[in-house]
Amino acid sequence: MMNTTRKDGRAPDEARPVKIIRGWTSTGEGSVLIETGATRVLCVASFTEGVPRWRKGSGQGWVTAEYAMLPRSTNERNQRESVKGKIGGRTHEISRLIGRSLRSAIDLSALGENTIVVDCDVLVADGGTRTAAITGAWLALHDAVAWAVEKGVIAKRNQHSVLVDSVAAVSVGIVNGAPVLDLPYVEDVSAETDMNVVGLGSGGFVEVQGTAEGAPFSRGELTQMLDLAEKGLHRLNSLQARAILTPPGVEITSADLGL
Amino acid sequence: MMNTTRKDGRAPDEARPVKIIRGWTSTGEGSVLIETGATRVLCVASFTEGVPRWRKGSGQGWVTAEYAMLPRSTNERNQRESVKGKIGGRTHEISRLIGRSLRSAIDLSALGENTIVVDCDVLVADGGTRTAAITGAWLALHDAVAWAVEKGVIAKRNQHSVLVDSVAAVSVGIVNGAPVLDLPYVEDVSAETDMNVVGLGSGGFVEVQGTAEGAPFSRGELTQMLDLAEKGLHRLNSLQARAILTPPGVEITSADLGL
Amino acid sequence: MMNTTRKDGRAPDEARPVKIIRGWTSTGEGSVLIETGATRVLCVASFTEGVPRWRKGSGQGWVTAEYAMLPRSTNERNQRESVKGKIGGRTHEISRLIGRSLRSAIDLSALGENTIVVDCDVLVADGGTRTAAITGAWLALHDAVAWAVEKGVIAKRNQHSVLVDSVAAVSVGIVNGAPVLDLPYVEDVSAETDMNVVGLGSGGFVEVQGTAEGAPFSRGELTQMLDLAEKGLHRLNSLQARAILTPPGVEITSADLGL
Amino acid sequence: MMNTTRKDGRAPDEARPVKIIRGWTSTGEGSVLIETGATRVLCVASFTEGVPRWRKGSGQGWVTAEYAMLPRSTNERNQRESVKGKIGGRTHEISRLIGRSLRSAIDLSALGENTIVVDCDVLVADGGTRTAAITGAWLALHDAVAWAVEKGVIAKRNQHSVLVDSVAAVSVGIVNGAPVLDLPYVEDVSAETDMNVVGLGSGGFVEVQGTAEGAPFSRGELTQMLDLAEKGLHRLNSLQARAILTPPGVEITSADLGL
Amino acid sequence: MMNTTRKDGRAPDEARPVKIIRGWTSTGEGSVLIETGATRVLCVASFTEGVPRWRKGSGQGWVTAEYAMLPRSTNERNQRESVKGKIGGRTHEISRLIGRSLRSAIDLSALGENTIVVDCDVLVADGGTRTAAITGAWLALHDAVAWAVEKGVIAKRNQHSVLVDSVAAVSVGIVNGAPVLDLPYVEDVSAETDMNVVGLGSGGFVEVQGTAEGAPFSRGELTQMLDLAEKGLHRLNSLQARAILTPPGVEITSADLGL
Amino acid sequence: MMNTTRKDGRAPDEARPVKIIRGWTSTGEGSVLIETGATRVLCVASFTEGVPRWRKGSGQGWVTAEYAMLPRSTNERNQRESVKGKIGGRTHEISRLIGRSLRSAIDLSALGENTIVVDCDVLVADGGTRTAAITGAWLALHDAVAWAVEKGVIAKRNQHSVLVDSVAAVSVGIVNGAPVLDLPYVEDVSAETDMNVVGLGSGGFVEVQGTAEGAPFSRGELTQMLDLAEKGLHRLNSLQARAILTPPGVEITSADLGL
Repeated sequence: MMNTTRKDGRAPDEARPVKIIRGWTSTGEGSVLIETGATRVLCVASFTEGVPRWRKGSGQGWVTAEYAMLPRSTNERNQRESVKGKIGGRTHEISRLIGRSLRSAIDLSALGENTIVVDCDVLVADGGTRTAAITGAWLALHDAVAWAVEKGVIAKRNQHSVLVDSVAAVSVGIVNGAPVLDLPYVEDVSAETDMNVVGLGSGGFVEVQGTAEGAPFSRGELTQMLDLAEKGLHRLNSLQARAILTPPGVEITSADLGL
Repeated sequence: MMNTTRKDGRAPDEARPVKIIRGWTSTGEGSVLIETGATRVLCVASFTEGVPRWRKGSGQGWVTAEYAMLPRSTNERNQRESVKGKIGGRTHEISRLIGRSLRSAIDLSALGENTIVVDCDVLVADGGTRTAAITGAWLALHDAVAWAVEKGVIAKRNQHSVLVDSVAAVSVGIVNGAPVLDLPYVEDVSAETDMNVVGLGSGGFVEVQGTAEGAPFSRGELTQMLDLAEKGLHRLNSLQARAILTPPGVEITSADLGL
Repeated sequence: MMNTTRKDGRAPDEARPVKIIRGWTSTGEGSVLIETGATRVLCVASFTEGVPRWRKGSGQGWVTAEYAMLPRSTNERNQRESVKGKIGGRTHEISRLIGRSLRSAIDLSALGENTIVVDCDVLVADGGTRTAAITGAWLALHDAVAWAVEKGVIAKRNQHSVLVDSVAAVSVGIVNGAPVLDLPYVEDVSAETDMNVVGLGSGGFVEVQGTAEGAPFSRGELTQMLDLAEKGLHRLNSLQARAILTPPGVEITSADLGL
Repeated sequence: MMNTTRKDGRAPDEARPVKIIRGWTSTGEGSVLIETGATRVLCVASFTEGVPRWRKGSGQGWVTAEYAMLPRSTNERNQRESVKGKIGGRTHEISRLIGRSLRSAIDLSALGENTIVVDCDVLVADGGTRTAAITGAWLALHDAVAWAVEKGVIAKRNQHSVLVDSVAAVSVGIVNGAPVLDLPYVEDVSAETDMNVVGLGSGGFVEVQGTAEGAPFSRGELTQMLDLAEKGLHRLNSLQARAILTPPGVEITSADLGL
Repeated sequence: MMNTTRKDGRAPDEARPVKIIRGWTSTGEGSVLIETGATRVLCVASFTEGVPRWRKGSGQGWVTAEYAMLPRSTNERNQRESVKGKIGGRTHEISRLIGRSLRSAIDLSALGENTIVVDCDVLVADGGTRTAAITGAWLALHDAVAWAVEKGVIAKRNQHSVLVDSVAAVSVGIVNGAPVLDLPYVEDVSAETDMNVVGLGSGGFVEVQGTAEGAPFSRGELTQMLDLAEKGLHRLNSLQARAILTPPGVEITSADLGL
Repeated sequence: MMNTTRKDGRAPDEARPVKIIRGWTSTGEGSVLIETGATRVLCVASFTEGVPRWRKGSGQGWVTAEYAMLPRSTNERNQRESVKGKIGGRTHEISRLIGRSLRSAIDLSALGENTIVVDCDVLVADGGTRTAAITGAWLALHDAVAWAVEKGVIAKRNQHSVLVDSVAAVSVGIVNGAPVLDLPYVEDVSAETDMNVVGLGSGGFVEVQGTAEGAPFSRGELTQMLDLAEKGLHRLNSLQARAILTPPGVEITSADLGL
């Protein structure tokens, strides 16, 4: 089953090329442009002192995320949610997913009563926008924490303990009966099963969300998808590690890194 | 690890008692009150001829669901979403989950251009409201389909092919380091991982949604949780099968059935 | 005129059977399921310490109510008000009516700076939902006050002075030219006049709301409707008195009580 | 009790001076400025051919009303409902009341498939705004019907049968234990009972809405209030009859007419 | 070009008749009814002590405005913005414009931490509603400041320094190729260019907003329009100066003043 | 006055460097990234066949625009308008301004019953976002028209008559008493007057919007600002002319072009 060829010629366990630039915009305490194939997401972290009212006096910080798509990030234009006057269920779901994922990688006590919001705006959508957003958002979060440590907003003694891990995400699925890694839009719409997996750099899972779109999936298929996901996450961990060593404004690509 | 005792005395792989009454209200083409421990959800299916505008002329029907909680279904009162003027992210997520789950068990072509909406209103919430809602909603869906066949709204030739399977759902999780089945609220808030699994009566998975709330979970823990989920789903399949043989207005309980 | 027979065989001055269970749900400081004919309303009272901002420092408490209908409590499904994003005029009107009615029976100074919200959710609607809601809501209010006295949240010296009276409500109307008591849906839609009357256990009126739907009504007809209303209120006063002497979880019915 | 003097020197059964100008604005098929004491309401009727979708093909017309207050029509400024983004319960209630009242005076079949909306905007509020609105709105409705007959939009054969009656409204109440007619704001806020009565020119009641604000009211008090209301309605019927004989742009006052 | 005659017979540089009454309503610290041709706007100023949260402790006051149109102020009825649930772009734009214009004429430090809101409600719209609103709103603002000085709410030492200038506004445009002053609706809809100019009594411009609706406008045309605007503003300055010397309740007209 | 130096060293009549890339995203019938100094706006045009309902059957097309800012395009994060549930007045104003500007350059009859929406999303905001948006949006509009001509959606005979002109925009203002061209954020917030001027490639004005923020401006200052604006517009006309000759994906800069 593994030697099926895909429309774009990739092997089932082959992910799309990734490009990352940190510091892409001049605003934001962290700002990352991430591309996965044609998918392009801008992740900007905003660090503010203080926490929402319900958390005041807890000694703990807060990390959250907001996901949105530009109206013409897709093949057909979608109406803006600001114009509709309400946020759709999908947007809510993904924003919450990104927020939970980021919080799994940070020690909110060490962060102190500070808030980091990471805005993930999809400029071009070609499948895997939520997983690209998580992977890019962690880098923006990393830079915002580094900024706060440098400014002395985060206590010196906590500088190494705030970020406890890295977090990245991949999509996997069953397409034409075969498990595949990293689905572009064209595969996504015809997939029997679509699964997003969020994992830590140190190895555990943070989220596993598998949905049968057409046919149900078996335990065996679940096992195969998880194998692909672990492979994909491993590659992204390496890319993230490389990205934080690269200066802002310099693009890194998976191809250059042989990943 | 499996012999840990829980606060309510259950074994880790032991689910809470379930009660089901079909035909609980006089309105609705299907109407089911389902209780799982203290959790109590009213699932009412509304059958209407015709489909939403975007589906007209497709020859296919539509099945969807709406989930909501009464303001004082919980320990503390929550503001109504109608008063807030918008539906929260969690409500959206769960409504979409129930809708997808139900659609996995129905042949929309055989349904013809008809719509079934299943309203799942939580009267008492003590953990596992979304899984109880799915399990009860399928029964309401079953009754609405039966009603339509009897009324002749669904073509005779399709009467056996509309409902292609049954669907049920359970929650599993890691609590105090141990995998457990069917978490009440008190376990849910302290769980390291919380996972909802939706499965078909014939055995495949429809949804697997695992979220690390505290610590990440390993592949090993995932395997253990899936084992518990399969066990829990098996029991619910039996309960559902029994329920559809029981006349409306008569309560069945898992205890009476030895399940 | 008084010997006209109605569709359901009742005499013009005969009300429908009533069932009441206190403590129907495990949540809520008061929780009452009330049925009037097929109409079924769940009334849950939530007691919280403190009052809304505009009342702080007044030394007075606040009692309010929220009325809502489940989408399929009626013969045809109605869209949820949370989905519409706004509350309709009818819902507003009835919520306000219930709140005013409850406040007529309570001494807000003796309540102290505490708030009681009574949620009245209609599970099945067959006419008279607002009057059933008021009658049931008073019982839920009674139980919430009793709870607060027992917990010591309401000062000992006020324990007998908080609830100053009981309150109940009935509908009356002119149907086919004849005054009738307690209209089910089928009569409600064809009534020439529809009137809701809220009264205290001790005898005075709290609300009289008569609306000519078809033909106007004369002073003579108004007199006849008020006579019927007084009779209906008297019966409900007796039922409420009996209900508060009955333990939670035990159903009382008007038939058993010969009312 | 009837010889109590009121703050403004009126006898208990004495209504405030009324001024009416038809044709106050150049827009609107009917346009009436009505003043009752300091209360000032602009009632503008808009006639449009066609009916709302739910009424198409019925052969019947539709009449509705919208009530609103300018933000500084009151002693303290209120936030605009357009700014709040939603219409309050009181506004909804009053708009519905005015609409029902107007519909009691018109034959919707004779109107044909046409719609009349009467906008009642309160420029100054000093008690009795809803009753002034109903009284003024009927005049605006009258003029809109006359306009449509003249333009030939309403069929000739129906010209005398569209408006079947006149409708007016008064407030009555119990203030300091005594029944009084036509309450200004200062009495309204301290009234024990507040009642609005809508009646036809030919004598029947259309709406009776009595609310105990402080103490409940007895049948005896209800009788006294209805006596006052009938007296007040009788005077307004005369004023309306005079107003429709007076040319647009000419003000009539109750004082000039000895009413 | 200047001797073109207009539909209503005015010369290109001739403005419509203006009527002004201060104190038109009994509510509001300032209340002005202004008419420009058939256009009629009610401007009511509300003075409140204190400022919005974001301005507290600044020592400075705040002046703002809200513009709205009654639904039938126009030839065809428009839906209320409160019913739509949102305020349209045009309303926002004009409210902001009026607020900025008023703030250019007031010393917010001398005002102290007080707020003045001027509500401008259009009763009849026949072109030039925003410019009439600004001209009338300044008079209402003037009266609210005078009220506050008299009540001692504004410090004595600031009584002459709060209002630093007067402000008025006119519309100009290019209609059928010719520059004209003060466009009624019929000219407004066919104008090639529409320009609103707000100026101070002492001579400077506060706002210049010119929009090409059909053809672009040249520098030469811009110069001609500004000449007309300066002429129109000069006349309104005189009218405003006269109005503040006229007692409340007394109407002044441009005709009577030879303006 | 003209030799004042500005904070960033520019002469008063010197505009900031501009960069333009057409075809920056793979989606959109036109897609332009424009930078003016640090300001960065993505303009994406969506071409759809058909027109809004109110324009059907007119034979004319429609062009509109939507402007929005990413939450962290500014120095401090702003809440998303989708989260607030409504669009602010400023956003409305600017969207309308861009739409009007674009329509001044297109022949809607030649466009036929087709719609072009240009989304202008601000990625980084450093003053002049609306003028950059207009300048970039025209290029996106140009490309969308070219696309439609190539696809044959726009009739062959109209291919040269759809776009009748080019349109661009600049900001000018009075800063520290001196007229300056192209204000960055730091000048914008301290400007006495802020003016946006939209002009056609062939020379006329489309919009002139001058606002006194601090002191009023005189006719003399207005003249100086208009001189600067004409100079700035001339340069942008040249840049736009160059841009449409440059292939998609290739960046052009004002510096390279000596502009």
